[in-house]
Amino acid sequence: MGYVLTATIPRDFATTLAATREALSEVGFGVLTEIDLAATLEAKLGADIAPQVILGACRPPLALAALQAEPSIGVLLPCNVVVRSLDAAHTLVEAMDPAAMVTMTRNEGLVDVATDARERLGRALELVAG
Amino acid sequence: MGYVLTATIPRDFATTLAATREALSEVGFGVLTEIDLAATLEAKLGADIAPQVILGACRPPLALAALQAEPSIGVLLPCNVVVRSLDAAHTLVEAMDPAAMVTMTRNEGLVDVATDARERLGRALELVAG
Repeated sequence: MGYVLTATIPRDFATTLAATREALSEVGFGVLTEIDLAATLEAKLGADIAPQVILGACRPPLALAALQAEPSIGVLLPCNVVVRSLDAAHTLVEAMDPAAMVTMTRNEGLVDVATDARERLGRALELVAG
Repeated sequence: MGYVLTATIPRDFATTLAATREALSEVGFGVLTEIDLAATLEAKLGADIAPQVILGACRPPLALAALQAEPSIGVLLPCNVVVRSLDAAHTLVEAMDPAAMVTMTRNEGLVDVATDARERLGRALELVAG
């Protein structure tokens, strides 16, 4: 079992990042945090990595249900969706697979929440892929 | 194997949150993101949960090494440290256990990075408890 849901998009980074934000909104996820990882590593280390942004996606009713089932689940929230440039014409979109939360916590009480989140994120990836 | 490193602190939430920020800085982690989860769920759902803040902690050299070993690891970055109120006089500090990254990815190339991150976060928890 993997830990990411992934889609390779035949479009540039900026277009894919915008489409990802829109798709997350359409499936009911808000974006609580955003980290420009390439810019951060460039600023702190002078490292040169391909454009990569981490979006912290959250659907509040799911977050609340997850906390009620597993009080420590905050260490795995929000659900990260990473947009990462492969080349000028191809971009990867990767989401943490919510099913991995069940595996990590070994808490079956998270199955319904994880299944709901997984379906929504899967739909978001399909929307981005168009 | 668990997925969190945890410390129960016999102090109030605000004091513990401040001490956690300071301890993370002392062990070489910056805080890239911050989510007031209780405020977010109150605003979005009217839900009343105990004070809880998610700090997104990152040590750039470790993040870079992790990305080089496992390009998809961004979905598990930054390393979340959650400060959560238990009652007026007790607060829990929980960090995602970096060892869980190795388990999830099944990538032995992450062992050194995870071990370094785990030692630093463990020290941070000791400093907060200190």
